[in-house]
Amino acid sequence: MKRGIKMVSFECDYVAGAHPAILKSLIETNYEPLPGYGMDHYTASAKEKIAKACGIDNADDVEFLVGGTQTNSTIISTMLRDWEGVITAESGHINVHESGAIEFTGHKVIELPQKNGKLDPADLRGFLNKFYSDATHDHMVFPGMVYISHPTEMGTLYSKAELEEISGICHEHDIPLFLDGARLGYGLMSSSSDLTLHDVAELTDVFYIGGTKVGALCGEAVVFTRNNKPDHFITSVKKRGALLAKGRLLGIQFDTLFTNDLYFRISKHAIEMADKLKEIIRSKGWEFYIDSPTNQQLILMNEEQMAELGKYVTFDRWGVYDEERTIVRLATSWSTSEDDLKVLEEADL
Amino acid sequence: MKRGIKMVSFECDYVAGAHPAILKSLIETNYEPLPGYGMDHYTASAKEKIAKACGIDNADDVEFLVGGTQTNSTIISTMLRDWEGVITAESGHINVHESGAIEFTGHKVIELPQKNGKLDPADLRGFLNKFYSDATHDHMVFPGMVYISHPTEMGTLYSKAELEEISGICHEHDIPLFLDGARLGYGLMSSSSDLTLHDVAELTDVFYIGGTKVGALCGEAVVFTRNNKPDHFITSVKKRGALLAKGRLLGIQFDTLFTNDLYFRISKHAIEMADKLKEIIRSKGWEFYIDSPTNQQLILMNEEQMAELGKYVTFDRWGVYDEERTIVRLATSWSTSEDDLKVLEEADL
Amino acid sequence: MKRGIKMVSFECDYVAGAHPAILKSLIETNYEPLPGYGMDHYTASAKEKIAKACGIDNADDVEFLVGGTQTNSTIISTMLRDWEGVITAESGHINVHESGAIEFTGHKVIELPQKNGKLDPADLRGFLNKFYSDATHDHMVFPGMVYISHPTEMGTLYSKAELEEISGICHEHDIPLFLDGARLGYGLMSSSSDLTLHDVAELTDVFYIGGTKVGALCGEAVVFTRNNKPDHFITSVKKRGALLAKGRLLGIQFDTLFTNDLYFRISKHAIEMADKLKEIIRSKGWEFYIDSPTNQQLILMNEEQMAELGKYVTFDRWGVYDEERTIVRLATSWSTSEDDLKVLEEADL
Amino acid sequence: MKRGIKMVSFECDYVAGAHPAILKSLIETNYEPLPGYGMDHYTASAKEKIAKACGIDNADDVEFLVGGTQTNSTIISTMLRDWEGVITAESGHINVHESGAIEFTGHKVIELPQKNGKLDPADLRGFLNKFYSDATHDHMVFPGMVYISHPTEMGTLYSKAELEEISGICHEHDIPLFLDGARLGYGLMSSSSDLTLHDVAELTDVFYIGGTKVGALCGEAVVFTRNNKPDHFITSVKKRGALLAKGRLLGIQFDTLFTNDLYFRISKHAIEMADKLKEIIRSKGWEFYIDSPTNQQLILMNEEQMAELGKYVTFDRWGVYDEERTIVRLATSWSTSEDDLKVLEEADL
Repeated sequence: MKRGIKMVSFECDYVAGAHPAILKSLIETNYEPLPGYGMDHYTASAKEKIAKACGIDNADDVEFLVGGTQTNSTIISTMLRDWEGVITAESGHINVHESGAIEFTGHKVIELPQKNGKLDPADLRGFLNKFYSDATHDHMVFPGMVYISHPTEMGTLYSKAELEEISGICHEHDIPLFLDGARLGYGLMSSSSDLTLHDVAELTDVFYIGGTKVGALCGEAVVFTRNNKPDHFITSVKKRGALLAKGRLLGIQFDTLFTNDLYFRISKHAIEMADKLKEIIRSKGWEFYIDSPTNQQLILMNEEQMAELGKYVTFDRWGVYDEERTIVRLATSWSTSEDDLKVLEEADL
Repeated sequence: MKRGIKMVSFECDYVAGAHPAILKSLIETNYEPLPGYGMDHYTASAKEKIAKACGIDNADDVEFLVGGTQTNSTIISTMLRDWEGVITAESGHINVHESGAIEFTGHKVIELPQKNGKLDPADLRGFLNKFYSDATHDHMVFPGMVYISHPTEMGTLYSKAELEEISGICHEHDIPLFLDGARLGYGLMSSSSDLTLHDVAELTDVFYIGGTKVGALCGEAVVFTRNNKPDHFITSVKKRGALLAKGRLLGIQFDTLFTNDLYFRISKHAIEMADKLKEIIRSKGWEFYIDSPTNQQLILMNEEQMAELGKYVTFDRWGVYDEERTIVRLATSWSTSEDDLKVLEEADL
Repeated sequence: MKRGIKMVSFECDYVAGAHPAILKSLIETNYEPLPGYGMDHYTASAKEKIAKACGIDNADDVEFLVGGTQTNSTIISTMLRDWEGVITAESGHINVHESGAIEFTGHKVIELPQKNGKLDPADLRGFLNKFYSDATHDHMVFPGMVYISHPTEMGTLYSKAELEEISGICHEHDIPLFLDGARLGYGLMSSSSDLTLHDVAELTDVFYIGGTKVGALCGEAVVFTRNNKPDHFITSVKKRGALLAKGRLLGIQFDTLFTNDLYFRISKHAIEMADKLKEIIRSKGWEFYIDSPTNQQLILMNEEQMAELGKYVTFDRWGVYDEERTIVRLATSWSTSEDDLKVLEEADL
Repeated sequence: MKRGIKMVSFECDYVAGAHPAILKSLIETNYEPLPGYGMDHYTASAKEKIAKACGIDNADDVEFLVGGTQTNSTIISTMLRDWEGVITAESGHINVHESGAIEFTGHKVIELPQKNGKLDPADLRGFLNKFYSDATHDHMVFPGMVYISHPTEMGTLYSKAELEEISGICHEHDIPLFLDGARLGYGLMSSSSDLTLHDVAELTDVFYIGGTKVGALCGEAVVFTRNNKPDHFITSVKKRGALLAKGRLLGIQFDTLFTNDLYFRISKHAIEMADKLKEIIRSKGWEFYIDSPTNQQLILMNEEQMAELGKYVTFDRWGVYDEERTIVRLATSWSTSEDDLKVLEEADL
């Protein structure tokens, strides 16, 4: 395999293709005739491995979808009932960066404040208590699910205690907890995390293990943790235009990711690179926007600084901070190398 | 690359992985950092090549989506207006095999009779005349688009004259004509076809060039032929959960398919294999369900015959014919080989 | 009350205001302060009376909505599950004259042939058997409800035996049967009918008793016959913009209609007028389009005949019959008088 | 007409039936045969009168719907484009008390802070500037309409200067401004208001004149002020289940309301009653939650106070204020009399 002679990129964690082991699997299986729509034996094998890794009994409670927004809207709209909406921190991906995909399915996104990108258990409890004490709540959207992402949009993490508290509040109110794990691996492998994959499966009602941003070409593995997969799920997936004819593309990738802990090794590598990246950021004296223990680092830069940075590496303008400064994202992934870091470290910045 | 030691398969045209040239491209570009969401240069190149192949001016009028049902529902729902529905032959994929994906977007599928799997221009004309002469049509769903597939679900083809007639009727009524080309290559390369890709672009208002069933891992290339791409199309795609983060996966595949006529060579190969397959079917004395000039052959078999056939190759139970017989589908694709045909030919059937 | 000096009208059964007894009730209760949204005691009383008339236990299983299309789309969309659609005869109101209101809620209308405006039990049974024997039915819309109207769009009626057969097929497949009774009174009071209101409640899973076309200003009374009212129904009604602030308008009208059998007396009057209307039609030698035992009579006329008819009474151009003839509707209602009939009888037609 | 011997009610402004003049019109026109669906001459007359009162040219740009939530969801969903959502203050009716009716049509409600129940022009300007400067806004919901209500949910009013500023911001960004006038009459007749109906028509792109809460049994009159009524509006209304068969019910009521200024006289009466009600509240020493210049007064009471108050009049528990106190609503309407006020004034409270 040759390497493109492109500028070093810290733009995002989906900047390269797939981890080489995944490409290798695709090549090796390429001529094997397989049934479509996820009925193949690689998909079955991937489901088994993921169920085992999560500690759930039934491999049929694992399903594969293509991308994150698709997964969020499919899960939320098949699990909510007609009169319900989904609660999220205002900064949640479903509230900000999905072009209204949840509302497209006819359901409201109910926003609560974000604190470090996270939903605060106290805010959640307060909202639910107020809702049910409101005499007019029959004219309101009922809270029918709680959505969190881990890591969050800002790269921050829930502690086990926080997740337990949110989970407890949800279960008191008989509301499922859905964890968007588009970057779940980076959360689990962070040295700041006290959560295991088993914990996630125990404390949530449904979650997904992101592939697209953790080394796959595409793909997200949904795990229904309480034997609560919606009835006729495949038909609902088809109805949303989300059923892949060559389901093998998802099955083979996840079978590879969950063989020999590849998913965790990829994640760990990115975290190690991110830890070194943080050191470089500190050494350069750049200001952090937030303290992120995962693979995405958010820093503040003015236009002049960004112009200089852009001479060495590509990066992402993540958001406007104030009139002078922009929030800049630098991210690591499976493809980030020590050489990439060296380019940044040695840059005259 | 090793070959799986599986039973020879004529089940469908998405039974194998990707054409080797596509895998090769994915491997070669794998480490190249590229922007997401289709903003990469391979996607731009693929758009240019497809626009040129279709004879349209603006490469921005080509867009890539992941699968067929997703493409149908995205195109139809972004082009219809609130008061409109889409006309199809009753056997159309959108009416039968998409789990209600069009209705999920809030629009009616208006069915007309099918004749050999096709929409009959006379039926279309009759329906439209009746609609507008009905005094109560303000309480009805307005016809806002005509959907056809080419080849059809049954493998049949529209002649140029037929397509011209349908196109003319649509334009008389100012209704766009949408051609579902999930298997377009097989239609264009059939010796029975008098239609070119240029003809398709000229006679329709929007169509797509199917990749999933013509050698790609996934992907469909939509072509808006009248500078009529819906405004803010990317946002509408995102809203439908259909925007791929690693858009490169689609761009690289289509860039490869439209280099050195690979798309047409793949299609031609499958048609050649299908022509030989038809000879074998005739020689075995099996009864055709319909005369198909493309890569899918539909034949009638009883349970006993299917049991025998199943000893040699895999096939698809396409539909119920009568109490005794099933419609059996045998399909060819890029991966069908002379050896595969020989297995069937030499089988004691 | 003065009478407008307008042309005699047989146009439809919603051509006049409300039955005088209804207006009287609205006047008498006008100053009484009542809670909104159907929480008033007149609504409660109406529910009780209707439950009793239907022989169902729970008055809370009766709900009021404003109009027919609203009722159809609310009932169907709250009772169907995500993967399901509703079966109807192709001539069903939901399939033809509701501008796609069902599809607007994300569900397919599955059309079967109509026979005299009715769904044929054999067609229904055949469709269901075929659906479940189709190997690809996971990619199709599941039949989740059967919709019939009684009387039908064409004024025809189901016999008790037919309704029992359809009901039996539905229950074999665990699919609810929904009867649209926009003109139910006329069906029950027809001398051709062997069905009682109790029968309707026993044989269907949900139905409605139309008010708009049977003497009310507006309003339809929905009856859930199996303690199967959807959870949080009022919230779903509100979500569809269908909750009336002054719910009293519906409650008072239906309380009046179900006091002293007014609903049945209104219906019977219209049927008597329709029987005389049929005699007049026969005496004039006009051709019937269909034999209708209810308040709507459909006849065939050419343009010349309609021009003449229009000099005496107003009528409805119900549909195109052939190149020369139109299907003309003449309808009776609570407001049709012997004098109205005499105008037609004595007309030089 | 007799008067119900019920407790005096200040619960809301839809507590009684219709203004007597409206009932009189319904009675007088009751036997007149009229075409359905708003095609009658009373509806035409009402449209003409309202167009004239608003200073718009085309009476066809006035349309009638049944209720407020229905009107909000119909207007918003027919005017927004696929990629757009509607901006509102967080306290807006569409965001809080419509059970997700807007989201049911597939569009996001974008909430900004409320200030005295109003949308602050500076917040609106800031949001729009930030949106368009965000590099990722193609993945977000585009602002496609601004929704305000006048009076607001809290009874407060926009000044002419404020409305001009909001209107100006909308037009700078080519976004329509929609004013929910469910209680518009009370806003226009408030002594604190410097806005006329002409001003409202000039400064907004679409608004409605509420009937339900201003003396009608039901009904809202929508005014499209820029010849911008959506194409095929009646079909879209039907699709939403919102088309009334006996459209006369709306036409006759609004024709009456806009004859001899009845709409304004009703509103003025309620405002006069509210001004006296405020005096009584002040004299009792009750604490206002907010200073409302319209017909709804919001005060703070603990449980004991509410128990006492409930002995004399009915009222509405509008919301939770803190652990001890509730926000209580006392409202006036066309049916509020000096005698009603005297009951409150003389109560030993």
